[in-house]
Amino acid sequence: MKPRFIALLTDFGEKDFFVPSLKAVIAGINPEARVVDITHEVPSFDVRAASFILASCYAYFPKETVFLAVVDPGVASGRKIILAKAKRYFFIAPDNGLLTLALKREEIATLREVNQSRFWLTEETTTFEARDRMAPVAAWLTHGIAPEEFGPEVKTYRRLKIREPVLSRQEIVGEVLYRDKFGNLMTNIPFSLFPSGKLSKSKQEMVLHLGRTRIDRFVVSYAEVKDKRPFFLVNSQGLVEVAVREGSAAAALRAKPGDPIRIRFER
Amino acid sequence: MKPRFIALLTDFGEKDFFVPSLKAVIAGINPEARVVDITHEVPSFDVRAASFILASCYAYFPKETVFLAVVDPGVASGRKIILAKAKRYFFIAPDNGLLTLALKREEIATLREVNQSRFWLTEETTTFEARDRMAPVAAWLTHGIAPEEFGPEVKTYRRLKIREPVLSRQEIVGEVLYRDKFGNLMTNIPFSLFPSGKLSKSKQEMVLHLGRTRIDRFVVSYAEVKDKRPFFLVNSQGLVEVAVREGSAAAALRAKPGDPIRIRFER
Amino acid sequence: MKPRFIALLTDFGEKDFFVPSLKAVIAGINPEARVVDITHEVPSFDVRAASFILASCYAYFPKETVFLAVVDPGVASGRKIILAKAKRYFFIAPDNGLLTLALKREEIATLREVNQSRFWLTEETTTFEARDRMAPVAAWLTHGIAPEEFGPEVKTYRRLKIREPVLSRQEIVGEVLYRDKFGNLMTNIPFSLFPSGKLSKSKQEMVLHLGRTRIDRFVVSYAEVKDKRPFFLVNSQGLVEVAVREGSAAAALRAKPGDPIRIRFER
Repeated sequence: MKPRFIALLTDFGEKDFFVPSLKAVIAGINPEARVVDITHEVPSFDVRAASFILASCYAYFPKETVFLAVVDPGVASGRKIILAKAKRYFFIAPDNGLLTLALKREEIATLREVNQSRFWLTEETTTFEARDRMAPVAAWLTHGIAPEEFGPEVKTYRRLKIREPVLSRQEIVGEVLYRDKFGNLMTNIPFSLFPSGKLSKSKQEMVLHLGRTRIDRFVVSYAEVKDKRPFFLVNSQGLVEVAVREGSAAAALRAKPGDPIRIRFER
Repeated sequence: MKPRFIALLTDFGEKDFFVPSLKAVIAGINPEARVVDITHEVPSFDVRAASFILASCYAYFPKETVFLAVVDPGVASGRKIILAKAKRYFFIAPDNGLLTLALKREEIATLREVNQSRFWLTEETTTFEARDRMAPVAAWLTHGIAPEEFGPEVKTYRRLKIREPVLSRQEIVGEVLYRDKFGNLMTNIPFSLFPSGKLSKSKQEMVLHLGRTRIDRFVVSYAEVKDKRPFFLVNSQGLVEVAVREGSAAAALRAKPGDPIRIRFER
Repeated sequence: MKPRFIALLTDFGEKDFFVPSLKAVIAGINPEARVVDITHEVPSFDVRAASFILASCYAYFPKETVFLAVVDPGVASGRKIILAKAKRYFFIAPDNGLLTLALKREEIATLREVNQSRFWLTEETTTFEARDRMAPVAAWLTHGIAPEEFGPEVKTYRRLKIREPVLSRQEIVGEVLYRDKFGNLMTNIPFSLFPSGKLSKSKQEMVLHLGRTRIDRFVVSYAEVKDKRPFFLVNSQGLVEVAVREGSAAAALRAKPGDPIRIRFER
């Protein structure tokens, strides 16, 4: 089956001509390709946020979807463009760590450097590689061109340093990974690390520490909470999240990505 | 005819992985479904604004369009998910009043609670019902699954309290309903309430009061106005709107949704 | 071949019901039409920015694309709606100069005033001509209706006054044309005006003056720069651009569209 969907993730914003240029190039090469926007509002140059957003949604897309992800502080710096064919998906991105979190979960079938200029819009130096090189590769993939056509196999790709949560007998130490639109704080602590195992039983047996704030309210759903004091839960990604009902935990707690989190199990 | 378009309305914003997750789920269930964004920039948890935006555009969509509208302060609170089949459209939303204004105008053929978990992505508790429950239902509707498959009929749904404009012999009293991107102030006063009946003849026979501001300029089109003083007109929704030429009436008059409006007919 | 893609460019923003109304109307007339957003975040009423954005990306779209561009300070003012059939594309816009930069590059086959109300949603006066008049015309074009059906030929259209860069033996004088999301400053000076001709050879032989700032660093790609001092290069549009590595040149230099630029060639 040929890939058909192309999902775009960039920090280009939506006010300029950047994103429609990508879509135009894709439409020109394959008018049947179906383009879906993940987001174009990644904070400028924030490869880490891009990696998290991609990892948080890619697995819901249909098999064979092509992900074109461009947050690229080093555009035209000689960093490679890479194409990873995983078991179920294709990923195209600058080789700067953006794919770290997605490829941690996907088995890579082949990893290639994109360097075959016959697929590009221009062979000349360009400051807009997303339009001139990467978008065409994404579009040609949806025509069924095989990954090996786009460039030679490479052994490895750049990975972000992701701090892993540390588990001891009495506690898990992790950090805030992402702040969403509502101000919810997603952490790098998966529920699967919890010693108790079952969600409902673990209630009230633990306390979360974020900065000077001690949060002892662990809930299963937002709706259990009626007041504006912060609480924590396991979110739709299976990760611990700190939240405030109909409010911003980030603002209430003055917390941000990178801040340390500690969950202490009372027994 | 099977429904084909799915129109999305949320307060999820466009910077996170929420909206693309919905689109991914839909594409996975029915790659032929055509997704159109209404907006994802409804102010967080503002069910009233969502209801107004939906009512302002749904009727322009093709017959059989499925509207998936999620502004959901009570996510996972036990509030129902409802599916309304109207004569021309399908509506899926949390049962929190979001559909109030649209369903006021549409004849409901069947109203159901969505509770058949065989259509969901997961039977487990989830904090992301839009992705795990509602998006799949929207997608399966475009496969021609009948509404009765998704859950039992219910008798009623929650409605927002909408203040109706009050008409007396000499005046209409209403309120500001919505502030658009330009700062135009849309009111809940339809032109159809005007005693004069005909648009062109009603000119200069009335005065609008908003806070301490008295506006005596009623026009048919923006273009009649050359200066920056506020004026009012009947907008493309058939509603009275207060505006400033190439400027923000909301800022100039320090007015906002909920503010009372009074239109006085001079004779 | 019938046109198939409709590309939308407006200043309507993405929070209201304006943009989805256009898409709904198009879907109702031709469900097969493929709508692509250029942007809806043009600064309100900024016809000049809209003209630049359109000119910066239209040529990447497939042949026969219909461009529907609406930034319309004079809505319903009696300004015409125009339809330009160029060799490769269709353009629909209010006749206010928005098409200036695109039509400078495209050969016009036929230029028409859109006035045939049988294609409109309503014959009545409307404050939302984009929805009620222009979107239907775009959609009917994708059904293969010929341009002459929509209204009579007109001889001319309104053009923006665009200052052209002035070349003397020793320097080029131009201006800042556009500030993108990253704060990069695009100018109206095309590389083709450079006396040296070849990009690589022209290095270090010239100095750019913007306000009181003197910039002597001309590079081929962003990646040559490691520090935060401003530099200039030829961007993906072939235009001189002033930038700061992973930062905003506009903020660093307090510069904005309209500011004069002078490039002095050292010999």
